[in-house]
Amino acid sequence: MSNDKDTSKLWGGRFSEATDAFVQRFTASVGYDQRMAAEDIVGSLAHARMLTSIGVLSEQELVSIEGGLEQVSKEIENGTFQWSIELEDVHMNIEARLTELIGAAGKKLHTGRSRNDQVATDIRLYLRSAIDAIAGELTRLQRGTITLAAANTETIMPGFTHLQTAQPVVFGHHLLAWNEMLERDYGRLMDCRARLNQSPLGAAALAGTSYPIKREQTAAALGFDKPTENSLDSVSDRDFAIEFCAFAALLMTHLSRMSEEMILWASVQFGFIDLPDRFCTGSSIMPQKKNPDVPEVVRGKTGRVNGHLVSLLTLMKSQPLAYNKDNQEDKEPLFDTVDTVLDALRAFADLVPAMRPNEETMREAARAGFSTATDLADYLVRRGLPFRDAHEVVGAAVAHCIETGLDLPELDIATLKGFCPNVAEDVFDVLTLEGSVAARNHLGGTAPEQVKAAAKRATKRLDSR
Amino acid sequence: MSNDKDTSKLWGGRFSEATDAFVQRFTASVGYDQRMAAEDIVGSLAHARMLTSIGVLSEQELVSIEGGLEQVSKEIENGTFQWSIELEDVHMNIEARLTELIGAAGKKLHTGRSRNDQVATDIRLYLRSAIDAIAGELTRLQRGTITLAAANTETIMPGFTHLQTAQPVVFGHHLLAWNEMLERDYGRLMDCRARLNQSPLGAAALAGTSYPIKREQTAAALGFDKPTENSLDSVSDRDFAIEFCAFAALLMTHLSRMSEEMILWASVQFGFIDLPDRFCTGSSIMPQKKNPDVPEVVRGKTGRVNGHLVSLLTLMKSQPLAYNKDNQEDKEPLFDTVDTVLDALRAFADLVPAMRPNEETMREAARAGFSTATDLADYLVRRGLPFRDAHEVVGAAVAHCIETGLDLPELDIATLKGFCPNVAEDVFDVLTLEGSVAARNHLGGTAPEQVKAAAKRATKRLDSR
Amino acid sequence: MSNDKDTSKLWGGRFSEATDAFVQRFTASVGYDQRMAAEDIVGSLAHARMLTSIGVLSEQELVSIEGGLEQVSKEIENGTFQWSIELEDVHMNIEARLTELIGAAGKKLHTGRSRNDQVATDIRLYLRSAIDAIAGELTRLQRGTITLAAANTETIMPGFTHLQTAQPVVFGHHLLAWNEMLERDYGRLMDCRARLNQSPLGAAALAGTSYPIKREQTAAALGFDKPTENSLDSVSDRDFAIEFCAFAALLMTHLSRMSEEMILWASVQFGFIDLPDRFCTGSSIMPQKKNPDVPEVVRGKTGRVNGHLVSLLTLMKSQPLAYNKDNQEDKEPLFDTVDTVLDALRAFADLVPAMRPNEETMREAARAGFSTATDLADYLVRRGLPFRDAHEVVGAAVAHCIETGLDLPELDIATLKGFCPNVAEDVFDVLTLEGSVAARNHLGGTAPEQVKAAAKRATKRLDSR
Amino acid sequence: MSNDKDTSKLWGGRFSEATDAFVQRFTASVGYDQRMAAEDIVGSLAHARMLTSIGVLSEQELVSIEGGLEQVSKEIENGTFQWSIELEDVHMNIEARLTELIGAAGKKLHTGRSRNDQVATDIRLYLRSAIDAIAGELTRLQRGTITLAAANTETIMPGFTHLQTAQPVVFGHHLLAWNEMLERDYGRLMDCRARLNQSPLGAAALAGTSYPIKREQTAAALGFDKPTENSLDSVSDRDFAIEFCAFAALLMTHLSRMSEEMILWASVQFGFIDLPDRFCTGSSIMPQKKNPDVPEVVRGKTGRVNGHLVSLLTLMKSQPLAYNKDNQEDKEPLFDTVDTVLDALRAFADLVPAMRPNEETMREAARAGFSTATDLADYLVRRGLPFRDAHEVVGAAVAHCIETGLDLPELDIATLKGFCPNVAEDVFDVLTLEGSVAARNHLGGTAPEQVKAAAKRATKRLDSR
Repeated sequence: MSNDKDTSKLWGGRFSEATDAFVQRFTASVGYDQRMAAEDIVGSLAHARMLTSIGVLSEQELVSIEGGLEQVSKEIENGTFQWSIELEDVHMNIEARLTELIGAAGKKLHTGRSRNDQVATDIRLYLRSAIDAIAGELTRLQRGTITLAAANTETIMPGFTHLQTAQPVVFGHHLLAWNEMLERDYGRLMDCRARLNQSPLGAAALAGTSYPIKREQTAAALGFDKPTENSLDSVSDRDFAIEFCAFAALLMTHLSRMSEEMILWASVQFGFIDLPDRFCTGSSIMPQKKNPDVPEVVRGKTGRVNGHLVSLLTLMKSQPLAYNKDNQEDKEPLFDTVDTVLDALRAFADLVPAMRPNEETMREAARAGFSTATDLADYLVRRGLPFRDAHEVVGAAVAHCIETGLDLPELDIATLKGFCPNVAEDVFDVLTLEGSVAARNHLGGTAPEQVKAAAKRATKRLDSR
Repeated sequence: MSNDKDTSKLWGGRFSEATDAFVQRFTASVGYDQRMAAEDIVGSLAHARMLTSIGVLSEQELVSIEGGLEQVSKEIENGTFQWSIELEDVHMNIEARLTELIGAAGKKLHTGRSRNDQVATDIRLYLRSAIDAIAGELTRLQRGTITLAAANTETIMPGFTHLQTAQPVVFGHHLLAWNEMLERDYGRLMDCRARLNQSPLGAAALAGTSYPIKREQTAAALGFDKPTENSLDSVSDRDFAIEFCAFAALLMTHLSRMSEEMILWASVQFGFIDLPDRFCTGSSIMPQKKNPDVPEVVRGKTGRVNGHLVSLLTLMKSQPLAYNKDNQEDKEPLFDTVDTVLDALRAFADLVPAMRPNEETMREAARAGFSTATDLADYLVRRGLPFRDAHEVVGAAVAHCIETGLDLPELDIATLKGFCPNVAEDVFDVLTLEGSVAARNHLGGTAPEQVKAAAKRATKRLDSR
Repeated sequence: MSNDKDTSKLWGGRFSEATDAFVQRFTASVGYDQRMAAEDIVGSLAHARMLTSIGVLSEQELVSIEGGLEQVSKEIENGTFQWSIELEDVHMNIEARLTELIGAAGKKLHTGRSRNDQVATDIRLYLRSAIDAIAGELTRLQRGTITLAAANTETIMPGFTHLQTAQPVVFGHHLLAWNEMLERDYGRLMDCRARLNQSPLGAAALAGTSYPIKREQTAAALGFDKPTENSLDSVSDRDFAIEFCAFAALLMTHLSRMSEEMILWASVQFGFIDLPDRFCTGSSIMPQKKNPDVPEVVRGKTGRVNGHLVSLLTLMKSQPLAYNKDNQEDKEPLFDTVDTVLDALRAFADLVPAMRPNEETMREAARAGFSTATDLADYLVRRGLPFRDAHEVVGAAVAHCIETGLDLPELDIATLKGFCPNVAEDVFDVLTLEGSVAARNHLGGTAPEQVKAAAKRATKRLDSR
Repeated sequence: MSNDKDTSKLWGGRFSEATDAFVQRFTASVGYDQRMAAEDIVGSLAHARMLTSIGVLSEQELVSIEGGLEQVSKEIENGTFQWSIELEDVHMNIEARLTELIGAAGKKLHTGRSRNDQVATDIRLYLRSAIDAIAGELTRLQRGTITLAAANTETIMPGFTHLQTAQPVVFGHHLLAWNEMLERDYGRLMDCRARLNQSPLGAAALAGTSYPIKREQTAAALGFDKPTENSLDSVSDRDFAIEFCAFAALLMTHLSRMSEEMILWASVQFGFIDLPDRFCTGSSIMPQKKNPDVPEVVRGKTGRVNGHLVSLLTLMKSQPLAYNKDNQEDKEPLFDTVDTVLDALRAFADLVPAMRPNEETMREAARAGFSTATDLADYLVRRGLPFRDAHEVVGAAVAHCIETGLDLPELDIATLKGFCPNVAEDVFDVLTLEGSVAARNHLGGTAPEQVKAAAKRATKRLDSR
């Protein structure tokens, strides 16, 4: 009743020659899926307890399995576990060791399940933990951002469109724009978590199993909201990995935009912020260099995560149901996305609140570039011009300033009247930076008062998580 | 007070030369953004009414604007509207025509807003409508799929893993696996809709406006849940487009899997289904051909949508705040994704319920490939073998069958006992197809009873939308 | 001998119901592939002449076909041709009209070929022309870039790494770096052209044809280097489209880098260049704005082309041979890539040479940021210090300068000697911008002399194209 | 003259605080770039010898450096080298150890170069070697494919379009279609190699160096064709990595198509081939399973490489010149692409020639599906019908066969004449499989004679590499 030609394999019965050594390595996943060892053991425990409750395992066998898995768990933790490529993956490695440790009971553990539902369970457990860790770092980054924003509700800087000076804004307002991006990311992350939190355990190979398993029991034991609805879908579905990577690609896109701004702001030409030395590195050849490495690396890592998303979409394209070996390729992109996102968030949660704004430089920059030209146009509207005509008048005044090398507030009243007779002495009030920002005093506007309120609302949202 | 050198432009005051003709065409978006004309007019009406309520426009001006916009709307509908590339985009085209029609009041409409918040509003309105249309077709496809499933809860076919015969399943179970994918897609679509349904109107160019606008009023008038929180973010955010395309890429990936299966099933080699002639086309050279064009085209269009997602992620990467002209490139990928998804869903909502299963061929196929080998192993477990040993025994029996050209049920009891003495006469019961599927009788399993219940639950979910 | 139920179809014989109207539209390609009408006619002419030379067509039939195709060609050119979606694609439309015009001879044209090899031929002819047009615009852009470079071999600006001031370079050197990127793009484009220039005509549906066709004859007539080697490959290969899009994605990536720099340089903060008004546009709300639209749009379009590359790779993934309907989806991404690349190159070929460097601002910027610190380190090496020690010393001097708000040349000799006693009075020579750039006097270095020579070599390469 | 606060750094002079420990890890590349250690040492040797030839290093210093680098090389090979994350990357680690070993001379090695040109050199050397290894495996795969093709020039199988039976072809012809794809891949690989084989060494940080270096000398010593043209471009260019990954993505796309076909062919439904057990694995639950893992994994890895291509394109998008830290992210995608491609080619070079065609099954399949219908149409054309009419007639005959359950050769002559009176007794000759394939007797056609010749030409091309 046994077959010796390939004893290391748990599926060798029908095979007439051993697996090619290179093929073994090429198709094995244990090199990277051992990361899910803890989840695999937790899943096996839940499965064993359920099998016991339906009488497939005896109480004694369960005790034996629990003890054996605890031993395996310890061996993995302390690094003495012998991983074997011949045993293909984390699941087979653990089961083989378990059987080595406890004998026959170990061989019974796989009753009523398959690697197909086992791996689907493990990866969801793994990703759920990862999501929770990411949510923590994301919240920390948001909190740091909002705190810095709250401290800078009156720090005036130029707002840009097309990287051209547009209108003055306060630095805190700009930071809260970052926070809004991150807030949406958090929402997407939670949606992803909710959708993945269903238990595929019990789908077995693809069709379910002939044992009277209790899927609700294992689902509950593993903290899932409920069992999945369809066995074929359960073993072939990798939506959660794709949805997570889509979340991650958008998050990284946001971080890349923040990076770009930090890099610009830290340049000599902008000079808006200083980054602490501990976040920067130097040059092997140029002794004066202090480079904003952290945002540069984060910006660079955006490509990595976009790439992983494309990998997974390409991977799943056109696969017939149910499980195909291709799916094994879901893990490395997913794991690396998790690592990248966690690292990037951690780096930014440290770095962002440590930025030091150069208030005077920001203010000077806000003054340049005719940033209050829109305020002048709005002033003219209040004096009776239709907006389009006011826009035209101010455009002409700006053209005159460029020619003469003057700024708008430097024009005398006579010159201004030359462009539009409606102008009065009070025009100079609207041309100040403080006047400009304070005037944008509505929900979402850059008026310091509004920004203070917005920072409070943002904090409240975080507190309620 | 006027400037004649480039009267067609609404921003020409400060410019000393006209735009290069090629640059005009190269940077204009009116060729594709006129698709948002209806949304632009609706948005302008809401803005005008709000301006009236805060006294910036008179009641008479409002009436004039309403009449003018109605006229514009009619001209667009009946195709007499003159679109001009010199006016760059849909927004400028409509405003210019409005001013032509009603004079000064038209020039006042742009008070307190900018194209930046205007386009952000229009595109969200557009996408919201598109989502609702897509949700409708998606629901129709799901309903058709479930109906066919409910009619095939006892039609047995082989279930595959690795495209090798694995275990028998019922056709209805397979179809419900498709429905599960689509159900998750629906969830993602609704999440996307909820997240985008906020009003950016009032963010103006980037910083808000100095007019005492009421953003809650325009938000409510346009059916948004609330105004957005931050003006800088409002004009630079394109998350909704990316999130929508990520939804779409995953949906198309699912449709590509369904396509692959329909194409396989319709091949001479599988012969599992027939597709009605009206969904197929022929060959210009081979008179006998009947090709499954619809699923092939859908499978091909998956790449298109993946590509659009990559386009948008690449587009937004590293853009500093707030609005940059790059963002104009968000529209074509988004529009084409909407069209592609709608068409693909419509095609499948028609095609899927029209598939005709060849029950006999499916059944024959299920019989081949030792599909009940797992049932035999499970039988041995019930007879006292640990699962791993049972697996080994059955593997050897299968190897014997391959050598001798027999199927498992064709082995006589003596031969079977030779592999494992525990076997008794009742073993042949577990080797039938009906026995095999009926045994998988738990939530999510392929037992006809379970599949019937699952189809009912699925219908109920649809009904509650 | 005829079949009336669907007379519009050229393949309807075996079908029992007409194609669904929506399916007709959904699967038709004539909406976009009519762009290849000229190539289709040229290809048909070559095929007809070959058929005549082997006796399949009579001379008279050939004359009739030539006349008919000329007529079709005219109708297309002058817009009177009636395109029909029922006829699916450009090939069927033209053939049907030809038969309408000349009768039986038209029905013979498709002898010995299939749409599969016909479309493969047409698309290669189309792409070959497109490549030649692109090569022209690319060369024009390179010429403009080199010309501007040659005029700026002594215009000093800061060179950046990490967007931090690194070392002074000359503007012409920077422009020639752009040219090097474009030069490699040109090489890739030519490699792509060489590889695609083989004739698939004669592969027929997939296996070749039973007529004694002369593939070398049609290949030569159409300007191909030779016929393709394998009929199955010929109708399923879309490598040329992917290779072209890969070329295009890398080209656009280069243009995006140039865009980014132009946008940075045109900002108030850098102020390195002015862009002529004719390449810029303004704001609907902010009267002072002058936005660098052209480089922004080009930067944005990078995503579009990356997306098309992904579309095509996804499209072809896992397709079994030979032709599948999916392949029809190759055209739109390819056409749009051609259009995008041509437009972007044209825009830059106009814009780049029109940039006006602000020499004084560039020079001032080069002076800031301790850009000659490396020169000081190199000086110390010449005075006997190992490079690593010299680097350390200069780093400390820079730290001192930052603290005291001085620049390196402003330190007095005593202070400098405090950092390193080896320093002598001649140290101040190496700290000048001119000294720094002139010192990098080797192949590829930024010394004006080298840049002049490099510009000459670059021109010579263009001249030899 | 020294600075103690952070002695591990080679750039610490100007910094006032040590690098944050997490930032250190986050920005370090030594974990993966140590793979380039051999190239780094070879590059340093060439640089040191050049420095000696221009008098910057003494002969004695050179000897000392050579000895030291040999020692480092040995330590790395035998695993005793202590890699340090604080030293950031492979370059700094080796230089630091060298200085530890040989003192002052080690500190002089970095004279006249920077990490920027050093890494650019190393990565090109690395990739060049990788390309050569890949070319070897690709050639091996092609040779195996051609050999199998040459052995199967008369093995008839159905050719497919739309996965529907189209026309009979010979198996060898199909295999040679695969070879054509691979042949183009080889061409692209060689083009990529030629373009990358230029030496960036001497570009230093970005502008060249003030030492009188001889770039031609180091270029020649390292086997490069010549030095690069422009220093700014040399340190910021990553084209070679992108071009290589584009090659790889297309190669993997080809391998995915071959995989798809092998998986289909190995299914019970097709049954065209057997794969040796040593390339397959089984199931943990289903004892009868034998899964085609190798082609499945290769098909799955296609996504991985597509993803890396997207990563790199995204990475480089919009980067201003010259070097930015983002570029460090080029390595992992590149390394993994090299590994993936090498493994996939190796697996297929073993697997493809080991496929065993089931000739009888293939032949039976070729007989089904009316595969010779086109031959019948061609026959009618020879009997005087225009092709379009012949197509129509045969279509009707096929419809009749489907209705009556007969195959075309089973119709009697009277019935055939009913469809078209031109038919004579010799019609049955054209309906045989042998007749059909033999008739396609032109360059690129599937006639056995042509396939034999094609296999010879293909072998000749390989021999001339």
